[in-house]
Amino acid sequence: MAKEDSAETAITPTRNQDYPEWYQQVVKASDLAESSPVRGCMVIKPWGYALWENIRTLLDNMFKESGVKNAYFPLFIPKRFLEKEAEHVEGFAKECAVVTHHRLEEGEDGGLAPAGPLEEPLVVRPTSETIIGESFSRWVSSYRDLPLLINQWANVVRWEMRTRIFLRTSEFLWQEGHTAHATKEEAMERTLQMLNIYERLSEQCLAIPVLKGEKTASERFPGAVNTFTLEAMMQDRKALQAGTSHFLGQNFAKASDIKYQSAQEDEVYAWTTSWGVSTRLIGAIIMAHGDDDGLVLPPAVASSHVALIPIIKKAKDRDAVMYFTHAVARELREQRYHGRYIEVEIDDRETGGGRGWDWIKKGIPVRVEIGPRDIAHNAVFVGRRDRSPRERESIPREQFIKTIVQVLDEVQKNLFDRALRFREENTTQIDTRDDFYAFFTPKNPEKPEIHGGFALSHWCGNEACEERIKRDLSVTIRCISLSAEKEAGRCVGCGEESTYRVVFAKAY
Amino acid sequence: MAKEDSAETAITPTRNQDYPEWYQQVVKASDLAESSPVRGCMVIKPWGYALWENIRTLLDNMFKESGVKNAYFPLFIPKRFLEKEAEHVEGFAKECAVVTHHRLEEGEDGGLAPAGPLEEPLVVRPTSETIIGESFSRWVSSYRDLPLLINQWANVVRWEMRTRIFLRTSEFLWQEGHTAHATKEEAMERTLQMLNIYERLSEQCLAIPVLKGEKTASERFPGAVNTFTLEAMMQDRKALQAGTSHFLGQNFAKASDIKYQSAQEDEVYAWTTSWGVSTRLIGAIIMAHGDDDGLVLPPAVASSHVALIPIIKKAKDRDAVMYFTHAVARELREQRYHGRYIEVEIDDRETGGGRGWDWIKKGIPVRVEIGPRDIAHNAVFVGRRDRSPRERESIPREQFIKTIVQVLDEVQKNLFDRALRFREENTTQIDTRDDFYAFFTPKNPEKPEIHGGFALSHWCGNEACEERIKRDLSVTIRCISLSAEKEAGRCVGCGEESTYRVVFAKAY
Repeated sequence: MAKEDSAETAITPTRNQDYPEWYQQVVKASDLAESSPVRGCMVIKPWGYALWENIRTLLDNMFKESGVKNAYFPLFIPKRFLEKEAEHVEGFAKECAVVTHHRLEEGEDGGLAPAGPLEEPLVVRPTSETIIGESFSRWVSSYRDLPLLINQWANVVRWEMRTRIFLRTSEFLWQEGHTAHATKEEAMERTLQMLNIYERLSEQCLAIPVLKGEKTASERFPGAVNTFTLEAMMQDRKALQAGTSHFLGQNFAKASDIKYQSAQEDEVYAWTTSWGVSTRLIGAIIMAHGDDDGLVLPPAVASSHVALIPIIKKAKDRDAVMYFTHAVARELREQRYHGRYIEVEIDDRETGGGRGWDWIKKGIPVRVEIGPRDIAHNAVFVGRRDRSPRERESIPREQFIKTIVQVLDEVQKNLFDRALRFREENTTQIDTRDDFYAFFTPKNPEKPEIHGGFALSHWCGNEACEERIKRDLSVTIRCISLSAEKEAGRCVGCGEESTYRVVFAKAY
Repeated sequence: MAKEDSAETAITPTRNQDYPEWYQQVVKASDLAESSPVRGCMVIKPWGYALWENIRTLLDNMFKESGVKNAYFPLFIPKRFLEKEAEHVEGFAKECAVVTHHRLEEGEDGGLAPAGPLEEPLVVRPTSETIIGESFSRWVSSYRDLPLLINQWANVVRWEMRTRIFLRTSEFLWQEGHTAHATKEEAMERTLQMLNIYERLSEQCLAIPVLKGEKTASERFPGAVNTFTLEAMMQDRKALQAGTSHFLGQNFAKASDIKYQSAQEDEVYAWTTSWGVSTRLIGAIIMAHGDDDGLVLPPAVASSHVALIPIIKKAKDRDAVMYFTHAVARELREQRYHGRYIEVEIDDRETGGGRGWDWIKKGIPVRVEIGPRDIAHNAVFVGRRDRSPRERESIPREQFIKTIVQVLDEVQKNLFDRALRFREENTTQIDTRDDFYAFFTPKNPEKPEIHGGFALSHWCGNEACEERIKRDLSVTIRCISLSAEKEAGRCVGCGEESTYRVVFAKAY
């Protein structure tokens, strides 16, 4: 599909026409991932997995700089472990994969049937607080063992009824950090420190601006004392959680018996935290930056940075074009951007047109055509993913090589600025119930997904009020901003007095 | 336990006293990993996980250089997939974790019971040929889609009855590569190319010499046409498989329907391969290099390279010692060894003695004591893990910094040379049945694990003969060496004519 000169878009439908379907089509066209024959599980294809690897590397470095060490804990959690923390079991037992047998044997119908029943069923980890807590209880005995700062990169399973690739899948990849501390203050400090690391990841690497805040009681992680969150606005104006960090108080320490001998020789419970981000972040990248031509990747985490497209129309040009192309690739690959060498794809497929559009759909930050005419001028023909597909320019080769890092930085910055502007344009202070309900009610009943965005409104602090708004509008309190200032007002739900605004939104 | 001046060893029992127990004690003393409350599953602790991360990074780079891309496939395999390949199901259905329910609900006794039965049981992947094959069948349609070169880093589960940490655990971490090719020749070439990459990893990074060869039919991967292996000798003279690469012919392509349109427009089945190494390699490192004082890590993959131990006996010395220590750390960390920056641990624990021995037990390649007297001479007091704990020397600081890379290289080389010498000393050509049986019969019935080592002997090619030897001696054919030369001889089992020698050994 050569779309170079048409006003058509590479993705059908467009965001405006049907946002949820646009999302699925971008996932497909960009070759990030696909559904698998296993209900709710996805296959992350190389283009998507490279993105995850880059996110992982950047985050892992930040973790390690902050003193966190990686470890690995069992995939399976004995049923009794999950039962230890009352709210936790309530939150996670309802949707989990349960292993009950350890063998398949030929059954009566000739097929295989489960055999070798387990004495105690095992749950495939939905999160690892309880199993890691068991280790911590053995690793911690003195205040000298604290703080204990552990992270795990792993797969987890939550049996989801309605799944959507990257956003809600039965199996997903994530990291989960778990720490134990001698004091409440230190645990809280670590909870916020990790939230700040996620903020850095989101804003500086994913180019996604986030609001930083605390969850209300009803939206907390099951078993946590406080849950802190980063909330990002997607292009359908819904919120997506881009990371959470939980202050667990002594709840899990008591459930798992994590105790230590203090300097004063008393035996006391430790204070713990946990924090995580997942492959959901890939969904956030798609929805924060993608456009009607497909995926748009922020250079800092992009699966690859530059696509070189040799244009060979006559066989006699082949050698010169390929030689030039490889030389450019070599010069690019010697440079570093955000800690890794610039990655270059050489697209020497023999297809006629369409290669440029393939790379646009895949969201690569920079694409470069190289043909005999470019070589004659010692130049390259460059397109940037943050600009219109039609806006391309010839750049002297040397200049292109010399400025590539700067160009990637510009793309990165433009994506962030655009996303920030979008959030600001769609965030409003709302002070009355009527305005609030109108803001979240779709103007066009045929497009129920289009609504106002984020509302900054007063809330009385009453759970019943929060619950009613959720029931009426599917709108939840995304967070109580950490930077919210005291301000007298009236709850947008019930009209009672309130002292601060919260962020209301529909959410993924 | 200050052992500096005693002849005692840091690990009890020694290798000679009780090798299997020595292994468990090294795992414990080095803090690599521990058993978990989940039957057969291990917790990989930070010191062990760092080792795995380093192995992963080196291997992953080699994969990527060879054109392989990473992806991720579902943890669960529908039962019917496993049934597709007859030998495969036979090999893997017998020992797997079976998920039968997707919920836990409060049962009659108040506890949680499995609920929400699945229509089709799911198996936690023991290996992913069948589920990846399903994707490949959709990804491959033309010869232009080939070769398809995919790798996955993942956890897998094989329900093991007798487990041993790192060597045989129900859950373990590994990589599994899966490729599809247009021709038999190309698939075979890739099978051997990956075997060579494993050989490089083992010999150049793990410092473990390996024999490269092909498995006999009875030892093949279930469903493979040929299985190639690397066999390493451990210090109890048993063999350990340090990587396998399988040529799958068209077996899995037929089972999974991986077909492509050839250049001649025929629709034909692809040829596939698979290859993997696992956290078992950590077991190999322990048993190839460990000594009676604990773990000995090859510097190329060591969890960390240098331990700095500040010696502060008087409070007034603290500042000067710590300043000097941090300065040395900084100068070390600026240098690279095997592609990563030199990693330095500063052990400022307030314990009296014992810190040096802790690092010996953990196998760190170089440990350095820094006290006021060293500082006065602008020197450091250095011990190397490839030498006796008592053999330490004062080295001028500048010289130490300047030669650290060379020292790490020497340690690496010494470990390899020592392991190679050990294998050569314990490998013998054996030509008669009596000698063969004597070689593998323990001299001391109280130490059944001590026997001859590797026997290079003739084999008639008959499976019955191989089976009898296995039954009599627990000795198997580890491989038919790829470099084996034709030679007339008599089978060590039955006396029939044979044209080549094979490698016989007891094995993990």
